[in-house]
Amino acid sequence: MATAHKCAWIDALYAAGLREIEVASFVPPRRLPQMADAAEVVRHALTCPGLTVMALVPNAQGARAALAAGVHKITIPVSASEAHSIANVRKTPTQMVDEVRAIVQLRNEVAPTVQIEAGISTAFGCTLQGDVPEDDVIRLAVAVIAAGADESGLSDTTGMANPAQTRRLFQRVHSEIGDHTGAAHMHNTRGLGLANCLAAYEAGVRTFDSSLAGLGGCPYAPGASGNVVSEDLVFMFEAMGVATGIDIDRLIAARAPLRAGLPGEALYGMVAEAGLPKGWRNAATGQGKAMAPAVTESGAKYG
Amino acid sequence: MATAHKCAWIDALYAAGLREIEVASFVPPRRLPQMADAAEVVRHALTCPGLTVMALVPNAQGARAALAAGVHKITIPVSASEAHSIANVRKTPTQMVDEVRAIVQLRNEVAPTVQIEAGISTAFGCTLQGDVPEDDVIRLAVAVIAAGADESGLSDTTGMANPAQTRRLFQRVHSEIGDHTGAAHMHNTRGLGLANCLAAYEAGVRTFDSSLAGLGGCPYAPGASGNVVSEDLVFMFEAMGVATGIDIDRLIAARAPLRAGLPGEALYGMVAEAGLPKGWRNAATGQGKAMAPAVTESGAKYG
Repeated sequence: MATAHKCAWIDALYAAGLREIEVASFVPPRRLPQMADAAEVVRHALTCPGLTVMALVPNAQGARAALAAGVHKITIPVSASEAHSIANVRKTPTQMVDEVRAIVQLRNEVAPTVQIEAGISTAFGCTLQGDVPEDDVIRLAVAVIAAGADESGLSDTTGMANPAQTRRLFQRVHSEIGDHTGAAHMHNTRGLGLANCLAAYEAGVRTFDSSLAGLGGCPYAPGASGNVVSEDLVFMFEAMGVATGIDIDRLIAARAPLRAGLPGEALYGMVAEAGLPKGWRNAATGQGKAMAPAVTESGAKYG
Repeated sequence: MATAHKCAWIDALYAAGLREIEVASFVPPRRLPQMADAAEVVRHALTCPGLTVMALVPNAQGARAALAAGVHKITIPVSASEAHSIANVRKTPTQMVDEVRAIVQLRNEVAPTVQIEAGISTAFGCTLQGDVPEDDVIRLAVAVIAAGADESGLSDTTGMANPAQTRRLFQRVHSEIGDHTGAAHMHNTRGLGLANCLAAYEAGVRTFDSSLAGLGGCPYAPGASGNVVSEDLVFMFEAMGVATGIDIDRLIAARAPLRAGLPGEALYGMVAEAGLPKGWRNAATGQGKAMAPAVTESGAKYG
């Protein structure tokens, strides 16, 4: 996707009301050449007033580049599955905790206001390893917060989560790290994406990762398909009376620059296809305002 | 779909473990000619030991034919939206309650062991009318039980339900009619089908209508698309540890006779597409056995 298309896409999401967008990944260009323009995309996103500009970084080198570009928030994928961790970032989970510590140190030195999220990938199961013990997930979330991360969420990288497990695991994480609990990052690989978000919401989660038209996946999680569809997720919460601050019509309109930038890519989303119900109205503004910056738009995911 | 294909499809669903299947609709053949073989399909389904053979009937005339064919259970759609009720069955909701009463009387005379379900259609909103007041839905559920129906469930005919509404409405219905509360019949029109089933489950519902590959819709609810996908619904519950008595691999295999009988029809379902997760195992047999006959397979829906 050309840089200009990425910027137009960010503008359209911002116009729809999104106030936290993961705009780029600072990864070695030889591994993901489509992210070589990360700094330029960040620079553009920083022109949107009030937008929290977030970037994914897999290591301290990426963090250095992201901080230099001026991001407000960094997200680091830390895999609970050793097999996925090694395939994805060539480090064990324990080595990744060390990496988080190094990034925190760097942040403290050069950009102390920047927020650091360490999301636990493959928290609900792994395509390579199979089961991922819940105790491993909890231990890792505790470890990244102890290493200085501001928040730690849980990612269903491989689309293996179910609602009972989602609720239980978020409750356990919250009982360990309290308000450091971060986003629910669910995929819709097996159709349970929204049901899992509902379960996470019931467990107290108020930040949800999603992507427009359900784009996404992970090059190192075979068979993993897209994230939860932003349009459908916002529709669910707004229909429930939970105000997100996002205008669904404008969110659906943001599919146009995406389509222009990635012609031929399959776009998912039931609400975009079916249209809003007769008599639709967004949830009252002001109601549930904490949700406003809640939906993170994942431009492209590395882990 | 040829009669032989319908029968092969029923056999495949039965082999997967389904023990309640809505196999036909007894409607005037001039309105739905594809249901002209209803009695023959029922006759075949009756050869499956232990299967509850269910049919949809819109009126007493259809009920007479269904009872003559030997069904075990009748389901009558009673629309809470006057506009949809008139478009669908040319009667007001009040006139439909009278029809339920007439069908109960008939059942009492000719086949007293047959169960009668009156499902409240458009319970969560109507494409024609827009909002459907919750009080209208509750009043109607109470009225059909007072008229002698054994159970009354709620149907999201138009795919407008959200999880908060689903939970609230089922709780209200249950507080009025208790154990007469019937199935949750949700559509996936806007992607919330499974989240709504989860909410209904949390409200105590243990019977869910769904259809293989998400087939379905309603000729008199413009824009309404398919029911919740059986394969994905069973996957959600089994993954949560709720035993359904259904073998997902065999359920997915039941798509073959469906495809043979309806070539060219779009088949939906995320689990069928993505496959079961690595290390998958069904919920322990015996655990949650009450769920065993819980998933109703809707061969084709009239309302």
